[in-house]
Amino acid sequence: MKEIYLDNSATTQVCREAAEKVVSIMTETYGNPSSLHTKGYEARMELEAARKTVAQVLSALPEEIYFTSGGTESNNTALIGAAEALKRRGNRIVTTAVEHSSVIEAAQQLQKRGFEVVFLPVEPNGSVSPESLQQTITKDTILVSMMAVNNETGAFQPIEAVSRLIARAGAPALFHVDAVQAFGKIPVKPKKIGADLVSISSHKIHGPKGAGALYIRKGARILPLHYGGEQEKKLRPGTEALPALCGMAEAVRVLPDMQQENALMRGIHQHLRARLAGIDNVHINSGDDGLPYIINFSVCGIRSETMLHFLAERGIYVSSGSACSKGKKSYVLRAMGLSDSLIDSAVRVSFSRFSTKEDADSLADSILLANNTLARTR
Amino acid sequence: MKEIYLDNSATTQVCREAAEKVVSIMTETYGNPSSLHTKGYEARMELEAARKTVAQVLSALPEEIYFTSGGTESNNTALIGAAEALKRRGNRIVTTAVEHSSVIEAAQQLQKRGFEVVFLPVEPNGSVSPESLQQTITKDTILVSMMAVNNETGAFQPIEAVSRLIARAGAPALFHVDAVQAFGKIPVKPKKIGADLVSISSHKIHGPKGAGALYIRKGARILPLHYGGEQEKKLRPGTEALPALCGMAEAVRVLPDMQQENALMRGIHQHLRARLAGIDNVHINSGDDGLPYIINFSVCGIRSETMLHFLAERGIYVSSGSACSKGKKSYVLRAMGLSDSLIDSAVRVSFSRFSTKEDADSLADSILLANNTLARTR
Repeated sequence: MKEIYLDNSATTQVCREAAEKVVSIMTETYGNPSSLHTKGYEARMELEAARKTVAQVLSALPEEIYFTSGGTESNNTALIGAAEALKRRGNRIVTTAVEHSSVIEAAQQLQKRGFEVVFLPVEPNGSVSPESLQQTITKDTILVSMMAVNNETGAFQPIEAVSRLIARAGAPALFHVDAVQAFGKIPVKPKKIGADLVSISSHKIHGPKGAGALYIRKGARILPLHYGGEQEKKLRPGTEALPALCGMAEAVRVLPDMQQENALMRGIHQHLRARLAGIDNVHINSGDDGLPYIINFSVCGIRSETMLHFLAERGIYVSSGSACSKGKKSYVLRAMGLSDSLIDSAVRVSFSRFSTKEDADSLADSILLANNTLARTR
Repeated sequence: MKEIYLDNSATTQVCREAAEKVVSIMTETYGNPSSLHTKGYEARMELEAARKTVAQVLSALPEEIYFTSGGTESNNTALIGAAEALKRRGNRIVTTAVEHSSVIEAAQQLQKRGFEVVFLPVEPNGSVSPESLQQTITKDTILVSMMAVNNETGAFQPIEAVSRLIARAGAPALFHVDAVQAFGKIPVKPKKIGADLVSISSHKIHGPKGAGALYIRKGARILPLHYGGEQEKKLRPGTEALPALCGMAEAVRVLPDMQQENALMRGIHQHLRARLAGIDNVHINSGDDGLPYIINFSVCGIRSETMLHFLAERGIYVSSGSACSKGKKSYVLRAMGLSDSLIDSAVRVSFSRFSTKEDADSLADSILLANNTLARTR
């Protein structure tokens, strides 16, 4: 049976180039980048080359890139590190109700530590309104954290408005963008966005799991979560995960032209959308102005788990929402105002650059079949 | 030129079996372990098999193994997580002056947060005396952190005495063992030691960098440093670094018989020791009762950097101390009471199971040559 993997927002297959890089680092350039001899020097050169590659695609300076173990660590470091660094300058943190759990729960932890955290609601399309942002960013705001693209729906957030609103409020806030889903799919340029902190992850762009990065604008200062060696300028001590980090850089290096890729993806997205719109009981939850790689829909009366199982039996892999929530009800769809029955029957399809129109057709065919044959809950 | 890598306490070459496992996970079992479909299930099975392998060699339960990104993260999680969890039950933390920087600096961070931290001195052989331990572990002690084997000298610490002393003091303390250098070389059995928390790392035992684990005794509770998904029972959220973690487990699986290996290593160690003892100006800093994989010595009057460079030119890679300290003066040797001139000329040799007596001879030959030809500082 042919496998059709349409769960690329959960994770991706590592591309050949990245896998080969990982192997060469593990078996040849295996030195510790902190060692002072040749083996260490070679490893350090690889590490710095990886940093440069990641910096380049963000139009950032290499010294603004801090390697981490992944998106969750980047997000935690950004939120907790920024809040603790700025706690003498204000007490308010602004974020949204639809962030990834690693932002939501880090923010809740900060709430417990005494920070005032505002979780902005979203409109039915899944985006925060610029008006609510403006009202919420006050002059004692020390951190604004907002994702570029939602992982469950593909909805864009108005990140380009934030830095202006922070300036207008005269707030000391740092602006953090969780770009884990956006990175490699749309241009993410911290300087252009006006972001001080940007999280990215390797395994969403065909790099290995266990690698990520946090962009920290030169001049911005945040506190570390871990203590020890001198690695990553003490922001993230510990021997660098060189194989995974160099694999990530290699995955970045072979990213296709984003504009071209987006147009292709938009075609597949619209095709699937049109096919789904033609199936009874299907309700499309994603707006048609989001990231084309993601489409979220509900097949009314068929529970997500049932549908996932039905599709998996046919070699088609999708999800009911964030992999990190492991099947819990989606707080993202709830924040968008969806009914319980739509939430309970939600399916998230997420493409990669290796997805095809035929994959979308196979999925639509199976959804149609499921719709006609599966027993419905009521 | 043949390369002789004798810096295995800094990091090791990934073994063939582990490298192959990493590749198969990256390219075949690439699912997200939290995904509910077949690809996720396969990945989850690999993750749990890895956990079982690591648990087995520690004679622990699989549910007592929490995967991390490496030794530094394991140590930080143990120290900060335990101190924060137990802060209502006491205020004292006991550790030693010769711990790895990730323990020392995490402990210093806890000092800043108001905990009383005692850094126990060591004897000239590099070990803490059981008497000083007994005097220091009081009934308000909430955490004792001690390494099993020192990374710079190979000195063993009296870890087997600690749990008894904690019980005798009636202290609520958790006992953490940094077993990063010991793991895979001597049996590390938390239950037998009476340890509640044990840190291990992948890249010191021929597994990939970016993976480690923290053993947490069933029933012991510590707080997380990161927040987000449900992974590792929320102690360490974020998509699991499956390639590196499974690579680590594979490296564990192919570990040779430790007793046999230790005897071989003892032979190489004693051989090198005897040869070094025959060279003028050489002072051996490691006791002869430590871990045979490590031998620390000084060649009086020749600075470490000079010696490292001289050896590296001959394809022999050693270090001046911990890689994580990047050439700073060794606080470990200082704590042992060594003179500045011995500290400034210290060399750490660390073997792996792939090291040979011939490697030791090549090193000794080069040290002899260096001793006879290099200009001396005074």
